Amino acid sequence: MKLTAKDIIQDLELVRAKSPLVHNITNYVVMNTTANALLAVGASPVMAHAPEEVADMASIARALVDNIGTLSEPWVAALAMAAAAAREKGIPIIYDPVGAGATPYRTHTIRNLLQAAPPAIIRGNASEIMAVDDNVSKTKGVDSAVAADAALQSAWRLACRFGCTVCVSGATDYVIDEKRTSRIHNGHALMPRVTGLGCTATALCGAFAAVNAGPFRATVSAMAVMGIAGEIAAEKSAGPGSLQVQFLDALFNMTGADIEERLKIS
Amino acid sequence: MKLTAKDIIQDLELVRAKSPLVHNITNYVVMNTTANALLAVGASPVMAHAPEEVADMASIARALVDNIGTLSEPWVAALAMAAAAAREKGIPIIYDPVGAGATPYRTHTIRNLLQAAPPAIIRGNASEIMAVDDNVSKTKGVDSAVAADAALQSAWRLACRFGCTVCVSGATDYVIDEKRTSRIHNGHALMPRVTGLGCTATALCGAFAAVNAGPFRATVSAMAVMGIAGEIAAEKSAGPGSLQVQFLDALFNMTGADIEERLKIS
Amino acid sequence: MKLTAKDIIQDLELVRAKSPLVHNITNYVVMNTTANALLAVGASPVMAHAPEEVADMASIARALVDNIGTLSEPWVAALAMAAAAAREKGIPIIYDPVGAGATPYRTHTIRNLLQAAPPAIIRGNASEIMAVDDNVSKTKGVDSAVAADAALQSAWRLACRFGCTVCVSGATDYVIDEKRTSRIHNGHALMPRVTGLGCTATALCGAFAAVNAGPFRATVSAMAVMGIAGEIAAEKSAGPGSLQVQFLDALFNMTGADIEERLKIS
Repeated sequence: MKLTAKDIIQDLELVRAKSPLVHNITNYVVMNTTANALLAVGASPVMAHAPEEVADMASIARALVDNIGTLSEPWVAALAMAAAAAREKGIPIIYDPVGAGATPYRTHTIRNLLQAAPPAIIRGNASEIMAVDDNVSKTKGVDSAVAADAALQSAWRLACRFGCTVCVSGATDYVIDEKRTSRIHNGHALMPRVTGLGCTATALCGAFAAVNAGPFRATVSAMAVMGIAGEIAAEKSAGPGSLQVQFLDALFNMTGADIEERLKIS
Repeated sequence: MKLTAKDIIQDLELVRAKSPLVHNITNYVVMNTTANALLAVGASPVMAHAPEEVADMASIARALVDNIGTLSEPWVAALAMAAAAAREKGIPIIYDPVGAGATPYRTHTIRNLLQAAPPAIIRGNASEIMAVDDNVSKTKGVDSAVAADAALQSAWRLACRFGCTVCVSGATDYVIDEKRTSRIHNGHALMPRVTGLGCTATALCGAFAAVNAGPFRATVSAMAVMGIAGEIAAEKSAGPGSLQVQFLDALFNMTGADIEERLKIS
Repeated sequence: MKLTAKDIIQDLELVRAKSPLVHNITNYVVMNTTANALLAVGASPVMAHAPEEVADMASIARALVDNIGTLSEPWVAALAMAAAAAREKGIPIIYDPVGAGATPYRTHTIRNLLQAAPPAIIRGNASEIMAVDDNVSKTKGVDSAVAADAALQSAWRLACRFGCTVCVSGATDYVIDEKRTSRIHNGHALMPRVTGLGCTATALCGAFAAVNAGPFRATVSAMAVMGIAGEIAAEKSAGPGSLQVQFLDALFNMTGADIEERLKIS
């Protein structure tokens, strides 16, 4: 049941061939970098958050990415309105609970969003996933403060509750649904020193979910492509500045051979 | 009547010498990258959208760039208020109808803005220009979905109606006013894989219009400089990440010889 | 009393060891780049502006950076609310009066903020600092339009009035409090051609103030590290695009030897 390199190559080719429109309601910090990552992987990004247009935009998109990284009341309303439209249209909704647990506002907002329009995929770091599940964890900003392992139980509970796929990202990325777990061991230690690469991973989940009926497989493919691009980029980088540049080039240029050679999945 | 390399070099030197203040009300995705492009070409960017200050800012600026890429009601009000102030002061207004046609909200907003404060320049891709002119086209996100040629008639109608210059950008950039058309064949196929280079082109139109009484000539110069910088950058790039970096370096370092050697205009 | 390279190295090591959470309410243009600079220097950035969470976020942070670069009423309220929370908790507040003097709105806003929650540090260019002190100067956008020297008196008056440290940045960076002045002669002429490096300097002041009880020393260390990173980056850059990339790499890789060799302080 584990995905192979061949599956992931096929999915990447599908993204490139279909260039799906991915509607993002995301935070100000990463709007530019996630749009660029979506373009580099072959998708078509669009950003729109006005109540006057989110439903229209969701209706022409193939996936919706809801990211709570820089909230305010109009933004929360837009996230909810777009999710309702996406749900009605039947396109996958991918949530990124950025900073959940850091403040009650973030934690409540993401829980309300999930309740109102259930996810295809949730992707966060360990403390964020725990905060979405339960109030115990206390996030220190947007970094992972707890070991990923401790969050797996939360991920599984969320997967069961919503019938969705949950990704707990970190040194190892765990992709979990009610019945399966995949572990992706790609990536590089320099990646967390670039802001918003977690948000980028979530956006890539949107691109892959847009062309693939199965959110579990889409998430595995997205996280594998993400990690492999990060590895290739890190080998050519002298620090986080160059990593960001090389990462986009690596996404754009990724070959089947790159995936075959580098994929570490278990 | 066609502009020569010498004209464009002169205009670029004017931007560098005068470093005009360009007031941008633009979308969140490209604020950073368009500010950097304006600095690289030699202009002074400022971003301001509060109703409390847009009129003051427009009054000290030499051009206003109104870009609808990420709208909301306060943003629409700011776009209109700044345009009214710019009109009163007599500085050129440059509009970018990002995503017009993708949602009714965008289409109506840009039409209302144009009606209230007529443009010096409108720059968009083919489907955006058609949507501004007429409701027939349906934009797929912010990419050009229709051939540029089909949009030329819309561009000409807009040019006549508003007495302005319209640029339909794409593989060939068309610059059109009531009486003239210029075609710029510079640029590179990798450019649409970087988010917001269209918005950057519009911002450069603002910089050139700020120092040049003729919007037609300003648009031709801006689009030529844009395309040539993109070509130089693409030759040094391994993908869209490095293109973005090289593009700013190319704008900053562009020489008269670069323009002489590379300009393809008809 | 002058800081030595050894002091600055110690401070940088402290930032890297403690990785302090720095809460930023900053402008849209620089959110991504200042977050990346904070990560590169070793701090943990968080961006949050909703009234519903700013106090909670300030309460878990070690410093607050209030930057007025792209204002609106909700943003002004958030800046004030976070500052009040930071003041109550006793963490340092660092203000960046971006574009003060360009419009009355910016000038009034920063003055009100300072009055309500006094600063540990204010960092601006010469015309901004003069505008905060007095209405005489008229800023041309966000660039320094007046000689840094003329602003030193304003800086000293602000330092006395608020019992704070004021940095007037430019070709030479002046760090001033009631009793002391330090001049940092590092940096490079290409730096002002990258948008938001002033905002980045302010964010770095936040990182150093978060781990150092003395705001004067924190500001000197931050500005020295900023200038040295800019120098190293400029030597490896072909223009403002590559400077931005190299700057982050230089911050990340900065060694004690870099500081020993390059520091120019008087």
